[in-house]
Amino acid sequence: MNGAQALIRTLVDAGVDVCFANPGTSEMHFVAALDDVPEMRGVLTLFEGVATGAADGWARMTGRPAATLLHLGPGMGNGLANLHNARRGRTPMVNVVGDHTRSHKRLDAPLESDIDAVAGTVSGWVRRSLTPEDVAADAADAVAAAARGQIATLVLPADVSWSDGAAVADPVPPRPRPQVSPAGVADVATAVGSGEPTVLLLGGDVVASEAGLLAAGRVAAGTGVRLLAETFPARMVRGAGLPDVGKLPYPPEVAIKALAGTRHLVLAGATSPVHFFGYPGVPGTPVPDDCTVHVLSAPGEDGVAALEELAGQVAGDAEPQLLEASRPELPTGRLTPRAVSAVVGALLPERAVVVDEAITSGVGIAELTSGAPRHDWLALTGGAIGDGLPMAVGAAVACPDRPVLVLQADGSAMYTVQALWTMAREQLDVTVVLYDNASYAILQGELARVGASGGGERAGQLLDLGGPTLDFVSLATGMGVPATRAETAEELAGQLRTALAEPGPHLVQAVLRPAG
Amino acid sequence: MNGAQALIRTLVDAGVDVCFANPGTSEMHFVAALDDVPEMRGVLTLFEGVATGAADGWARMTGRPAATLLHLGPGMGNGLANLHNARRGRTPMVNVVGDHTRSHKRLDAPLESDIDAVAGTVSGWVRRSLTPEDVAADAADAVAAAARGQIATLVLPADVSWSDGAAVADPVPPRPRPQVSPAGVADVATAVGSGEPTVLLLGGDVVASEAGLLAAGRVAAGTGVRLLAETFPARMVRGAGLPDVGKLPYPPEVAIKALAGTRHLVLAGATSPVHFFGYPGVPGTPVPDDCTVHVLSAPGEDGVAALEELAGQVAGDAEPQLLEASRPELPTGRLTPRAVSAVVGALLPERAVVVDEAITSGVGIAELTSGAPRHDWLALTGGAIGDGLPMAVGAAVACPDRPVLVLQADGSAMYTVQALWTMAREQLDVTVVLYDNASYAILQGELARVGASGGGERAGQLLDLGGPTLDFVSLATGMGVPATRAETAEELAGQLRTALAEPGPHLVQAVLRPAG
Repeated sequence: MNGAQALIRTLVDAGVDVCFANPGTSEMHFVAALDDVPEMRGVLTLFEGVATGAADGWARMTGRPAATLLHLGPGMGNGLANLHNARRGRTPMVNVVGDHTRSHKRLDAPLESDIDAVAGTVSGWVRRSLTPEDVAADAADAVAAAARGQIATLVLPADVSWSDGAAVADPVPPRPRPQVSPAGVADVATAVGSGEPTVLLLGGDVVASEAGLLAAGRVAAGTGVRLLAETFPARMVRGAGLPDVGKLPYPPEVAIKALAGTRHLVLAGATSPVHFFGYPGVPGTPVPDDCTVHVLSAPGEDGVAALEELAGQVAGDAEPQLLEASRPELPTGRLTPRAVSAVVGALLPERAVVVDEAITSGVGIAELTSGAPRHDWLALTGGAIGDGLPMAVGAAVACPDRPVLVLQADGSAMYTVQALWTMAREQLDVTVVLYDNASYAILQGELARVGASGGGERAGQLLDLGGPTLDFVSLATGMGVPATRAETAEELAGQLRTALAEPGPHLVQAVLRPAG
Repeated sequence: MNGAQALIRTLVDAGVDVCFANPGTSEMHFVAALDDVPEMRGVLTLFEGVATGAADGWARMTGRPAATLLHLGPGMGNGLANLHNARRGRTPMVNVVGDHTRSHKRLDAPLESDIDAVAGTVSGWVRRSLTPEDVAADAADAVAAAARGQIATLVLPADVSWSDGAAVADPVPPRPRPQVSPAGVADVATAVGSGEPTVLLLGGDVVASEAGLLAAGRVAAGTGVRLLAETFPARMVRGAGLPDVGKLPYPPEVAIKALAGTRHLVLAGATSPVHFFGYPGVPGTPVPDDCTVHVLSAPGEDGVAALEELAGQVAGDAEPQLLEASRPELPTGRLTPRAVSAVVGALLPERAVVVDEAITSGVGIAELTSGAPRHDWLALTGGAIGDGLPMAVGAAVACPDRPVLVLQADGSAMYTVQALWTMAREQLDVTVVLYDNASYAILQGELARVGASGGGERAGQLLDLGGPTLDFVSLATGMGVPATRAETAEELAGQLRTALAEPGPHLVQAVLRPAG
């Protein structure tokens, strides 16, 4: 058995049974070994950022790490932005990065680069397999490391992959999740019982599960504390029958207002909020100076159990207030960002997975979907745009029986637009709503927000995606994804209904540019 | 004057007057300052790999560094693959990477990452500007560092960019190029005069200039040594009136054959050749064991002067043998890779810049263009695919009066296909010949070459780009580039002729898939 065969078999035995791949010469034995281990599903991507983003989406929906297969340092570099997002979202992932043979390494061949250094910037665990005898145990360790909510990168020299002498390794037994101590819960119980203005900020495992949200709802009902979710949760369960938990807003001035007057901020699965960027004259965090921050559960700890324990202590028999089923009316007339949100809210299918990279175009989307049937919401955890389409690939591979809906801004779409091809190849049930405002609209706002002088013509040109306008219908059909274009709310509703009803991928380009 | 204004003015004064940009919030003051320094041309790209590849192409054609503007660590990550290619080609480049404000840095905001570590893997020079007073001098140092044939990366905190107190800095005077010592030339003179089988391997500055090639031709004429060029030169001057210098072949078995029996290998601007990858049972280099390697000039040294000195010592009045003007006949009938090469050879315009990412499809292209009118040839120096379309952007911005022709494989095209949009936006005179073989054809060869077992169905699927077939006409027109599709040699010739005659960008999809 060669190294590649033992590696793949070990991954599968440890629960890693999909590999999003963009291979090169140094990974050819890994590719060949896929025929020996049919339990491993190889999914080809045309660009590494699609592979890493897909692995992120897959793991968010399954709770298990996916593998990626990347080609040396440049391949890892191409995947780096979505690895960054995965790292910030604590997504488990196993990267297998092929490298030169051990004897070729010292020859400084054209593709030689410092893979380990690049890997180290996003990975919690990096190892280089040095012999075929080691590779399976290395892979088992990688899966165990990833399961702790981090990226594990295994660098695999080509000859370690092709040489015989390897054997399958057993999975490393999973480590139980860290529990919050009773003392920690008691401290928070005192704060939420203080009667002072208190916000319970939910994130991580707490918003990813109904149990976590319901426990938070009980605490709120019993004590009057306010519930908020972190701004960009990796996965949030939403919809009718759950407590109404809004997200802490993105714009600094709005976030500051949202937390104004708060005396106790209790973190359950979330980290203490900071603004996305620093701005002139604005403090770095929306947390008021006189607010005490309490950590009920840190990311990675069992926040749901902690919240349930807290609810038992402070909420008595209080019943959480739950959202009733409700949908917005279908809008009519000219397409605006809010009209798109209303159409999505009106038509969102049962058990949908929503991937949200709408950026500035997602106006009102949270409110207009809050009473929709139960769904999952995946956000851009690390701010590196270009995660939407790839995450949808992974979510759809993970959940073949659920519809995946991507709310996708145009500028961001272009970073990893190659994901559309994989959707077509795998016939994934993904519907992309493409917000076409022909600009980096968020940057137009940010230019003003940072107080940049000018906003002159030459600056404006660097934020403008018109001239030429991107035709996403052409781009999608060029990659095998049926696509249509909607200029009114009625057209959007009709096209979205059709796209959701038919299997396989679809793209609807929602034109938000001013007429003329 | 704020930091951004001083930075841009300093760059312009030092000769860096184009910036390929993909900005975000932390770069907004740099963007705003473009209105204050109109001498700096900002070129927007939709993906950072386009920006870095364009900067590579620009510098190869001008000999001066271009700037890139990148957004934090993920932005640099997206540009990393083409920075790798630039590093391997010794391309000068100045990256300006925006970062969080100094006070925001410690807050671990979502976009926080270790920019410096990522930058270090590709840069010969990395610095973080700590105050607005420093930033201009830092920029001048960056340009000077880049001019030594390396990548210089300046990390620019947002508040250093927006704060006042900066002043323009003078350019750092250029350091003269290192000259080869007379003793070094004398050693080589002995070798080439030995009468033993000798190869003069040319690269770097030597193949980028007519003078270098002509001096090499004199040495060959006077001594009988054989001339070869490195396999992937950053820039090579080619065509009628120059010596016939073939490239050392890529496939290891062919490269080994090309150097078999050689007793002296003299390097002029090239490094000692190694195979791209290690293969089972194949030595890592094509250089025979009993061959002595002599370094006439290392990359970065003045190889042209050294060769001219050598020619003076060993070649007497010998005249170099020069290629006569010749073009292949226009082929007819079914399109094959060789037929595409013949069409290109027949129609290659005077003073064209050819960007070569044809990979396996470039069959016969060297021979079929060797007698064409004088042209420049830019190759994939680092093996990280996805450099073709971006380099063409940069070359066309650098040489607005010259036609740019890209020989582009389909699989590679998809890594940075967003470059087409910038070609349309800037109305660059670029013609793309897109080789559509619907596969990672090189990997099919490599799978066999590394002796990977199987080549079973599942392995084959990971090397196949059919299902769905990529429609590059749709992709190009979706980004504003007029495109056509050719299935016969006659169609290709007609379409290529039209594309070359018209200004602005064009794409011709050359269908090489078997019929049916």
